[in-house]
Amino acid sequence: MPIVRVMRSVLAVSLILFLTACASGPRPGLPPRAGGEERWGTADLMVVVERTEESIIVLDASRHVLLGRVGGLGNLIHATVKFSHDARYAYVLSRDARVSKVDLLTLKVVKQVKSGEDSVGGVMTQDGKYVALSNYVPGEVRILSADTLETVAVIPAVVTGSDGKRIESRTVGLVDAPGNLLIFGLMDADQIWVVDAGKPGFPVVRKYTENVGRMPYDGLITPDGRYYVSGFLNSNYMGLIDLWRPEKVRKIFTSGAKSRAEVPLWKAPHLKGWAIAGDLAVLPAVKREAALIYRVPSWKLDRMIPLAGTALYTVSSPDHRRVWVDLVGKNGDLIQVIDLPTLKVIKTLNLGAGATHPQFTPKGGAVYVSLMDGHRVVVVDPESFEVIREFEATNPSGIFCADRAHKFGM
Amino acid sequence: MPIVRVMRSVLAVSLILFLTACASGPRPGLPPRAGGEERWGTADLMVVVERTEESIIVLDASRHVLLGRVGGLGNLIHATVKFSHDARYAYVLSRDARVSKVDLLTLKVVKQVKSGEDSVGGVMTQDGKYVALSNYVPGEVRILSADTLETVAVIPAVVTGSDGKRIESRTVGLVDAPGNLLIFGLMDADQIWVVDAGKPGFPVVRKYTENVGRMPYDGLITPDGRYYVSGFLNSNYMGLIDLWRPEKVRKIFTSGAKSRAEVPLWKAPHLKGWAIAGDLAVLPAVKREAALIYRVPSWKLDRMIPLAGTALYTVSSPDHRRVWVDLVGKNGDLIQVIDLPTLKVIKTLNLGAGATHPQFTPKGGAVYVSLMDGHRVVVVDPESFEVIREFEATNPSGIFCADRAHKFGM
Repeated sequence: MPIVRVMRSVLAVSLILFLTACASGPRPGLPPRAGGEERWGTADLMVVVERTEESIIVLDASRHVLLGRVGGLGNLIHATVKFSHDARYAYVLSRDARVSKVDLLTLKVVKQVKSGEDSVGGVMTQDGKYVALSNYVPGEVRILSADTLETVAVIPAVVTGSDGKRIESRTVGLVDAPGNLLIFGLMDADQIWVVDAGKPGFPVVRKYTENVGRMPYDGLITPDGRYYVSGFLNSNYMGLIDLWRPEKVRKIFTSGAKSRAEVPLWKAPHLKGWAIAGDLAVLPAVKREAALIYRVPSWKLDRMIPLAGTALYTVSSPDHRRVWVDLVGKNGDLIQVIDLPTLKVIKTLNLGAGATHPQFTPKGGAVYVSLMDGHRVVVVDPESFEVIREFEATNPSGIFCADRAHKFGM
Repeated sequence: MPIVRVMRSVLAVSLILFLTACASGPRPGLPPRAGGEERWGTADLMVVVERTEESIIVLDASRHVLLGRVGGLGNLIHATVKFSHDARYAYVLSRDARVSKVDLLTLKVVKQVKSGEDSVGGVMTQDGKYVALSNYVPGEVRILSADTLETVAVIPAVVTGSDGKRIESRTVGLVDAPGNLLIFGLMDADQIWVVDAGKPGFPVVRKYTENVGRMPYDGLITPDGRYYVSGFLNSNYMGLIDLWRPEKVRKIFTSGAKSRAEVPLWKAPHLKGWAIAGDLAVLPAVKREAALIYRVPSWKLDRMIPLAGTALYTVSSPDHRRVWVDLVGKNGDLIQVIDLPTLKVIKTLNLGAGATHPQFTPKGGAVYVSLMDGHRVVVVDPESFEVIREFEATNPSGIFCADRAHKFGM
């Protein structure tokens, strides 16, 4: 067989495989996807990751209906989803640094690239022009055009250690911030860097290098984009940067005492899931099975609220009256609800096996929850706590509402 | 001519007039609407009212392009626009109580009803199921199905005065609030009512009737849905309801002194355009040509910032660092920008004749401004203050970004 014909066959098979992988048809046991003529607005879609299936399902959170599934998205064991400002496109970032641009009007993958070997997440820049990836391997922040997914810049996270050795660091806690900035931590170099994504060449405009904290592992930015908080695996405090006065990193201690004897985090909670509600910040104190309540903007520890287990996410309702706390490990099926006016746990929910990642609809009328081991996504009325709808899904995990398109760091 | 034929002719002409009115084609001087195949996400569309033309134009705020025009929408001299939660539909509420449901994917009017004689605005309920209208004539709040626009309830704003006479009041300051509530003022009866829109029959669940304030004219709710603020035409204070403890209406004075001698409002500013930014509320003190700065949640007056004229709207940037102040009357073409960290006016913009109604894109990358007498909509870079794009429009006024779909009271 001539080599050209072989090449043609290989290309044809590759094309078929690719198209099959990108196909978004329904699977057995799931309601069929809405017909080709059906249309929907994109502002409050819910994108749910099926972590073992390389797929997402897309739900309409106004009507609580399944719109369809999109597959072939790479390893989604630790995946995240970002949105274009108009919420037409979802960008699914896989653990193996695959970036898939999904058209939420047609539920098709319109572009897909591999942008590294090992990635821990990413973010859309404030101006909506770029997707920035936080890569472990190679250690870098990589900037892609949100339009074409072409790499337009790479910021290597390379520093020289005190022993003169070259350190290529994993990058973590990447957020977008007002002023079209990007902020991230260098996990293996104990630094925090700030990039100006509005300037040619994406320059690093600030580096926090001294006495920052040991082993940053994640970060969050407050909803108004003013405060960046970094978590450290090997320090018993968090780092706070006030972007209105960004000269230094302030330490926020995770216990009343300033003892450094204890490092309370034995498992990395997701900082982006921490709740900022009015003048309260509700953070999980992992080792202690409690939620920590801080007063913002002083960031003084107010109290600890005991929980039935270890908190992973703390999620505020849009009206800031309640925080839903997702437990993992012991009592991992439970979700506890804290009432903020009284600072008490008012409800313990057992929705099913592996309940995780509560996500409110934009105005708080319903909460979507994944039952990772129960293979369903349930929709809960946050007043009555009753399940009002449920959908089959395979190992569902992260739930991302399209209203994140308009939130800093999300 | 038999009466049946006359009726048929009248119906036919009416139908033609209605269809003509609903047509959404471009007019001379404007770029043609995007082709039928073009599609867009709906999360950050900008809807601009052409107040003298019975029309709106729809702009894509991600790409800063004109998508098209929709006409036949009734008297838009004092119009407002509401959105379904998925931002697929815009509800244009005209001064003559016409409600037009516009499909933002196709730019067609899909339903239109007349829901009263004289209306001052309306709101979408928290659950997204109803559009509530604040009517002057008849004096009522009218509830329409967001799906069909059929009237599902009418709440007459009728009270018995101290002289035993029946008062049918105009309704004002209507907002949606957490708990699926509706809150509004009775302009001619000095009362504030609360409706539960989640209960059958839409019961009035609370009435504030005593010592509330004289002649409420508008209201706002804070972004977290906690505080309702009512403005009064004939009292020199505002009324504050804390919905976490809703027993009473607290008075907030508009000057340091608590003198009742002076009523500072000679023209009604739009309360819904007042800025709540972090722990600051920035309100226009109309008579004094100044912005009033309050501290939230104490609602204590902090200071007054002198302005070049009378403020109509004060609009916060999404990052809460700046407030754009729209002046009317003297120096009415000007927009002044207050820097919140320093509480100083840092910029005075002269964008053109009748500049009004600044509206930020959801993450604050650009500001849309109507030049009501300059017949253009300009897009301004909020950092450089340069005009980066402009569109022709006839007497443009209110600009409504679809991200309001997810904001209480908007």
